[in-house]
Amino acid sequence: MKTLQLSKAFTLLEPGPVVLVTTHDGKKNNVMTISWTMVVDFTPVFAITTGPWNHSFAALRKTKQCVIAIPTVDLLDKVVGIGTCSGTDTDKFEKFALTPVPGKHVKAPLIKQCLANIECKVIDFNRKHSIVILEGVAAWFDAARKEKRMLHAVGDGTFIADGRKLDRRKMMRSKLPAGV
Amino acid sequence: MKTLQLSKAFTLLEPGPVVLVTTHDGKKNNVMTISWTMVVDFTPVFAITTGPWNHSFAALRKTKQCVIAIPTVDLLDKVVGIGTCSGTDTDKFEKFALTPVPGKHVKAPLIKQCLANIECKVIDFNRKHSIVILEGVAAWFDAARKEKRMLHAVGDGTFIADGRKLDRRKMMRSKLPAGV
Repeated sequence: MKTLQLSKAFTLLEPGPVVLVTTHDGKKNNVMTISWTMVVDFTPVFAITTGPWNHSFAALRKTKQCVIAIPTVDLLDKVVGIGTCSGTDTDKFEKFALTPVPGKHVKAPLIKQCLANIECKVIDFNRKHSIVILEGVAAWFDAARKEKRMLHAVGDGTFIADGRKLDRRKMMRSKLPAGV
Repeated sequence: MKTLQLSKAFTLLEPGPVVLVTTHDGKKNNVMTISWTMVVDFTPVFAITTGPWNHSFAALRKTKQCVIAIPTVDLLDKVVGIGTCSGTDTDKFEKFALTPVPGKHVKAPLIKQCLANIECKVIDFNRKHSIVILEGVAAWFDAARKEKRMLHAVGDGTFIADGRKLDRRKMMRSKLPAGV
């Protein structure tokens, strides 16, 4: 996994993939499946919706750190499995054979099996709507990985894999931020 | 276009498609392309990131109403075109040959050419992060439409079309909300 320019990190979340969010509560690693995410700024800043109903939320609030890991199609059963059990009684890294890799800026682990990882710090929390605001502080991308199709959760138990790529860079040139 | 149960409306945005957001400022219709969206609650509640840099924002703040319209792959050039010009000097419904259809609960128009439309009311605004919180009040779906693949913006001028559908309903049964 190599570093990805931070100015490009928003392009990992802008397509709306389902993601894994890791935390480290001081004692152990945990991971949750999240599909309610949004880019908020190119710098990058992200929003995720989560709350006390997720076991990871306590660690997120306490440590103010997490990693957003981007899984691909081949990891679908792990993604669903992680989303349907709880860190209260399960070591999910062990159960789903995920390899934690130390990050540079946060104690939450990167996930080796994922296509990309973004180290994040919590910079704000909107309690009313359970929206956590994250600043990306480092990004990693596994360019050597063959399967690069991301997954999109529909919310009804079905998922959509990335399909055809369409290029409109020329048309959009005037609107693209610097560094992408 | 037929009504879609409101309990299913979140499944239109959860996969992370690029969307068109329409407004009506009391005089005319406008529309913007947005890919920074997030589901916040199943009820449904959505978040979008927008601010004064979008001409539509003034109408959104004033009327507290909008429609989130979901375009499909065949509409890509309209989506990009809408995102690269401004309502300050352009009638985008006319320029992009979009047909406005009256909604039931809001004055912002549905877009006939889109796969789905969600009528929304603004229920909150987080000024610090430019996040507008919307409550969906009615949803519409064009089941007769042949092309149903949504588009995902990468943010670098490229887009990804929906690919293969993967079914994990059995595995996820315990976690699915009622009514999807």
